[in-house]
Amino acid sequence: MQTELSKKLGIEHAVFGFTPFPAVAAAISRAGGFGVLGAVRYTAPDELKRDLDWLDGHVDGRPYGLDVVMPAKKVEGVTEADIEAMIPPEHRQFVQETLAKYGVPELAEGEASGWRITGWMEQVARSQLDVAFDYPIKLLANALGSPPADVIARAHEHDILVAALAGSAKHARKHADAGIDVVVAQGYEAGGHTGDIASMVLTPEAVEAVDPLPVLAAGGIGSGQQVAAALALGAQGVWLGSVWLTVTEADMHSPAVTRKLLAAGSGDTVRSRALTGKPARQLRTEWTDAWDDPAGPGTLPMPLQGLLVAEAVSRIQKYEVEPLLGTPVGQIVGRMNEERSVQAVFDDLTRGFEKAIDRINKIAGR
Amino acid sequence: MQTELSKKLGIEHAVFGFTPFPAVAAAISRAGGFGVLGAVRYTAPDELKRDLDWLDGHVDGRPYGLDVVMPAKKVEGVTEADIEAMIPPEHRQFVQETLAKYGVPELAEGEASGWRITGWMEQVARSQLDVAFDYPIKLLANALGSPPADVIARAHEHDILVAALAGSAKHARKHADAGIDVVVAQGYEAGGHTGDIASMVLTPEAVEAVDPLPVLAAGGIGSGQQVAAALALGAQGVWLGSVWLTVTEADMHSPAVTRKLLAAGSGDTVRSRALTGKPARQLRTEWTDAWDDPAGPGTLPMPLQGLLVAEAVSRIQKYEVEPLLGTPVGQIVGRMNEERSVQAVFDDLTRGFEKAIDRINKIAGR
Repeated sequence: MQTELSKKLGIEHAVFGFTPFPAVAAAISRAGGFGVLGAVRYTAPDELKRDLDWLDGHVDGRPYGLDVVMPAKKVEGVTEADIEAMIPPEHRQFVQETLAKYGVPELAEGEASGWRITGWMEQVARSQLDVAFDYPIKLLANALGSPPADVIARAHEHDILVAALAGSAKHARKHADAGIDVVVAQGYEAGGHTGDIASMVLTPEAVEAVDPLPVLAAGGIGSGQQVAAALALGAQGVWLGSVWLTVTEADMHSPAVTRKLLAAGSGDTVRSRALTGKPARQLRTEWTDAWDDPAGPGTLPMPLQGLLVAEAVSRIQKYEVEPLLGTPVGQIVGRMNEERSVQAVFDDLTRGFEKAIDRINKIAGR
Repeated sequence: MQTELSKKLGIEHAVFGFTPFPAVAAAISRAGGFGVLGAVRYTAPDELKRDLDWLDGHVDGRPYGLDVVMPAKKVEGVTEADIEAMIPPEHRQFVQETLAKYGVPELAEGEASGWRITGWMEQVARSQLDVAFDYPIKLLANALGSPPADVIARAHEHDILVAALAGSAKHARKHADAGIDVVVAQGYEAGGHTGDIASMVLTPEAVEAVDPLPVLAAGGIGSGQQVAAALALGAQGVWLGSVWLTVTEADMHSPAVTRKLLAAGSGDTVRSRALTGKPARQLRTEWTDAWDDPAGPGTLPMPLQGLLVAEAVSRIQKYEVEPLLGTPVGQIVGRMNEERSVQAVFDDLTRGFEKAIDRINKIAGR
């Protein structure tokens, strides 16, 4: 499975795997794909350094990358406390009432909320980059808009390709104009932040919009058939996130979330603003239903919503309150029905890809 | 482009084209595809007979099919007047206010509303079938659920394959259990009634759910690359509807609708209940916005909504009131940028398909 981009990066399969877990990223790179570590969960640069040290020591010299969240709009001198102050009391009350309704216990005294907004702020992303540029990363992806020009320039000085996620052809074009090297076309069916154009339509539109830049297809991909489909649509590779959530190397911390992921069908996700204030696909739960209910107060814009629900989400996760317990994941969750190793996922992808090519050649009379 | 199903039907390309226009259906069959005439717009069996006569005389002996709308749930003895009586006055008032706001003129005295609910009622669909079984149709598709058992049996007596549209694997399995022969997996990105699972995920799920029955992929397909992708996903063919709306053979009656279709991007559609009461993808307009606005009365369930808006839609169409003027269409509308003949669309599909196969074979190292 070789494209111009995979050759440039020196990988065996044009399969890019996004994951918050260093062990999964390392296993993806070792399996011949390209592991991309998500940095958003790191609040302290030291923690990122520790995990990059580990990752770099476990890829057997194979290339890997980093994914940061750097908002396109910079807000100077705004602190988390300033943002906290913008949240209406009505919304705080709705959070407390919903938690109380399900009997969600409080965190212990002094216990930190696991998920913070800070990873989403530019100063945090910049401190992550200061760490990351000391490592031989080959690709730097940004999940929210194009990275600032100085970051792109700095990456290029280090021979690092810069990728950015796009949910529309227009968005992809904007990234290309900003000087990035790779577009990740994130279809409607993808997990996490996503637009409403499905991969079948978005992928070729993005390819055409940024030609000759390479496009990776993201959203709805978890089998070799889907890899073949994405490449037929003109992509130079695929970007998979959801499928790694249930691999044996994943450190999900919550057996209940893993259970829910393994049991969920493709219709059990929802594109909701409940998590961050922007539409993000995730497991549908009574928590997302509460936020999406017209009878409730509705969600706040990013970054207010993320800050508003951070502590609540930590409590729901810590105590595994099943009706409310969710996670970002794409519609491909319907095929994630057993825990497998990263290598087993790759074996399945490559076998399925070859079978799909055999089949389509037969249809084409070749 | 040959699959088991296309061989069985004796067609050259596994491309099924759904269209309300006999001239388009005939051109699709003549081009080597399989033309399927949509019957929902025929209120009188005589009109259907006239158009089937014409179609049968213009396919050069090639096979073709018919698509009816036969609701799965039969409601005995309910007339259109009974249904009219169920519509709340508040909703009628909202229709009138919205039309007045845009200055939409009334129809002339005695002028019939062009679009009626009647085509959606079982007795009408049955009278259409009485006509259709006199013609050598090779496929009978039902757009709403599985057809009743006696209809399936009657079709099979005439050696007619029965197809049904499905928006989920579960729905597809239900059709298979009812004894149909072909599943049309209708992805989220498709025009008209559609679920929320995108084609990339839905197609392989449907294939697996009804194996060994053939699945046609519908939704987001308008280029040869997309045909290749759908076939890579395991489909035995593709089902295209939207792309035929702007072919030169189409009799759209409204230059303004054609203009809007040619200008629209993939992000200019919406999945709205405004038209029929069930989610259907269509051009986003100020009309769909009004119905989807939480400040309005919202839509009514099928079939009430369709009956409620029938006259209004006729008026909007007749007077081409642009801000309100829409039509069902899929996200592929973004690629429908010029009027072309059906043959030109086929030439483009087959050329693009071959190119996609070349490209993917190169990636696969073959």
